[in-house]
Amino acid sequence: MNKMKSWVDIPADSDFTIYNIPFGIFKTADKQPRMGTAIGDYMIDLAYLASKGYFEMVSGRSILIFENRYLNDFIDLGKEVTTKFRERIIELLSEENDELQNNAEDRENAFLPREEVTMLMPLDVRNYTDFYSSIEHATNVGTMFRDPDNALLPNWKHLPVGYHGRASSIVVSGTPVRRPKGQTLPAGETQPVFGPTRLLDFELEMAFVTCGGNTLGESISVENAEDHIFGMLLFNDWSARDIQKWEYVPLGPFLAKNFASSISPWIVTMEALEPFRTEGPEQDPEVLPYLAFSGAKNFDIDLSVSIQIPSGEEKTVCNSNFKYMYWNMSQQLAHHTVNGCNIVTGDLYGSGTISGPTPDSYGSMLEISWKGTKPVAMPDGSQRKFIEDGDTVIMKGSAVKEHIRVGFGEVSTLILPAN
Amino acid sequence: MNKMKSWVDIPADSDFTIYNIPFGIFKTADKQPRMGTAIGDYMIDLAYLASKGYFEMVSGRSILIFENRYLNDFIDLGKEVTTKFRERIIELLSEENDELQNNAEDRENAFLPREEVTMLMPLDVRNYTDFYSSIEHATNVGTMFRDPDNALLPNWKHLPVGYHGRASSIVVSGTPVRRPKGQTLPAGETQPVFGPTRLLDFELEMAFVTCGGNTLGESISVENAEDHIFGMLLFNDWSARDIQKWEYVPLGPFLAKNFASSISPWIVTMEALEPFRTEGPEQDPEVLPYLAFSGAKNFDIDLSVSIQIPSGEEKTVCNSNFKYMYWNMSQQLAHHTVNGCNIVTGDLYGSGTISGPTPDSYGSMLEISWKGTKPVAMPDGSQRKFIEDGDTVIMKGSAVKEHIRVGFGEVSTLILPAN
Repeated sequence: MNKMKSWVDIPADSDFTIYNIPFGIFKTADKQPRMGTAIGDYMIDLAYLASKGYFEMVSGRSILIFENRYLNDFIDLGKEVTTKFRERIIELLSEENDELQNNAEDRENAFLPREEVTMLMPLDVRNYTDFYSSIEHATNVGTMFRDPDNALLPNWKHLPVGYHGRASSIVVSGTPVRRPKGQTLPAGETQPVFGPTRLLDFELEMAFVTCGGNTLGESISVENAEDHIFGMLLFNDWSARDIQKWEYVPLGPFLAKNFASSISPWIVTMEALEPFRTEGPEQDPEVLPYLAFSGAKNFDIDLSVSIQIPSGEEKTVCNSNFKYMYWNMSQQLAHHTVNGCNIVTGDLYGSGTISGPTPDSYGSMLEISWKGTKPVAMPDGSQRKFIEDGDTVIMKGSAVKEHIRVGFGEVSTLILPAN
Repeated sequence: MNKMKSWVDIPADSDFTIYNIPFGIFKTADKQPRMGTAIGDYMIDLAYLASKGYFEMVSGRSILIFENRYLNDFIDLGKEVTTKFRERIIELLSEENDELQNNAEDRENAFLPREEVTMLMPLDVRNYTDFYSSIEHATNVGTMFRDPDNALLPNWKHLPVGYHGRASSIVVSGTPVRRPKGQTLPAGETQPVFGPTRLLDFELEMAFVTCGGNTLGESISVENAEDHIFGMLLFNDWSARDIQKWEYVPLGPFLAKNFASSISPWIVTMEALEPFRTEGPEQDPEVLPYLAFSGAKNFDIDLSVSIQIPSGEEKTVCNSNFKYMYWNMSQQLAHHTVNGCNIVTGDLYGSGTISGPTPDSYGSMLEISWKGTKPVAMPDGSQRKFIEDGDTVIMKGSAVKEHIRVGFGEVSTLILPAN
């Protein structure tokens, strides 16, 4: 990709370069929620710029969508329009373009210091599906709970295992999450007890957002799947391991997961991620024809998780990468719709926990502490097997290649004690 | 309940008596979708009556909700308003009231022969959860697939097992459903194959619709749960048994269920079902305190399933009753929110397959044909182990007590061959 330079001052380590241009919803004390993008340390008020006629590809009554509470209607315009819209923003921010650069009033009104605005939930999440597509994670879990010699269940390498999760309890970064209560079965007992989970865990995931969809009864092929993937965000799929263990047979996780999932506020488009395509792991045995694909369908995105303890000190507990995924997003979407299930604009699809090959790249405390047998030392001398009340879990993600840097910001969540 | 008589002519076997007054969305050739209720063989156009000022409890701009595409905003008015609204309709239809009875013009405009209108999807389904709360069904499945001596898993009598399903693929009665394709593992093989399901099944369920909800992190107690249950409908939770068997470990059903679920078009309110309260089965062992309840929380609603074969002939294959449910709706909702999971207006909660104690009351072909070992004879001499292309599955439900009859109509679905 050609080098691009913006007339906006962008710190060297910023996630929000001219190559990124993600979309989100923000509010300020004096303005209703509206759509914005980020560049360097600034928020750009896209509703304002649209009202000033900067975007001819979205006109008439359609410009009202920039003042919507969620991005759904924008995303629903379709990739052809939204891609042109993003390209126009890049043009307006480019050094060679003076339309906005030289309009002091519009610049003043459209640019806000990002530290002064509040980011909101970007999506009205319609349906949420969670996959289980990291072979390292599935192998670790199978080794711990079943049989190290047969860690993967027989179906795992033949289909991207997935299940439906709860859409209503997905919250944006900065929203505290309360430790859930539920039933658990104490070791050696036959009667369950009720109380706060003692094994609260994060799961480092990414999620993609769909645009458009298929008619119920039709399918989306693996070749066409990317037409329906608008963009991605960071996803923390909170889990209560003790509740899960007791409740999950035979129909899967329920209360162990649905108390909350946390997302980063910015949706980074697939166009911004294009430079970071990479090959995924070899798939052996060969997949069925409807899951076969060609080309590089994985993405090289560095991910990290840190725990900030109540003292304010922070410890990084995981460095992973989205490229480790065994099943890619195109395969996930083709599988999801091969039976005719319909996807719609605003659905979220979680990757499943993204663990890498080494212990420092495991994407959950369950794996990092190996079921609590290997506690992690914190800066204040305390230890963590799982997440404690008052801890803040912070996930970050960014992709870097040559002169191009595209980041996701973070998803940061404080854990409150149980009610 | 006192006897009530309407000035409308209502056939003796009608589901839609003056004691019912359900809510739905309909359209006609000349009118946009709008809200209606059913009485006898008539549809009543509630948007029309609202525009004529018959409902003072809903005024101003709010009357526009009767022209919405879905009932969600109406339900979101809250039970206090929607109950008054329904009582007002009953008043207007009562023999003693002449407001509508004696207004020929309004009567003419508001009443339509129901056979001339098309019923539409009544809800924008926000989240869909399916429970597994019939002890007879869970026992049958456990007996067939696991161990007759330990048919119920250890958690089953301690909590209402549930899981999240797909909201986007829920369709209204009359919408054909296409036989899904997917992966299955042939007996004795290790490599899966791809093709249309050979074990397509219905599941006889009922579902409730929620109104209002709880803040994320808070819970709804078993005592308050009914405040959040607006009404009920018939629910056919289509299932592909062979796909399910291969895919469902360890995270539960996915493509075996999410290709479609079918609902009846009318939402019958809990007020209409009040006369049919009854005690449920004894719960032993005693449940944890957060699931303990008092009073009659089950409902005596007769349910049936018939299969109409391509010749047009019909055979009833199941007569069951909603009163068999081991876990009641209040317990389901209290359990669902005990971890802080938030429910919202327009969620659907399926009961799980409602099987009774005898084989003629089993709620799925899996149980009726006992895994295909006991085929069912059809009127044309053919046999059914599961559902064939061209079959129409029809579920009906109604409650009768003394002079009171309240019915749900039906959910009827034609199965199309796989693409």
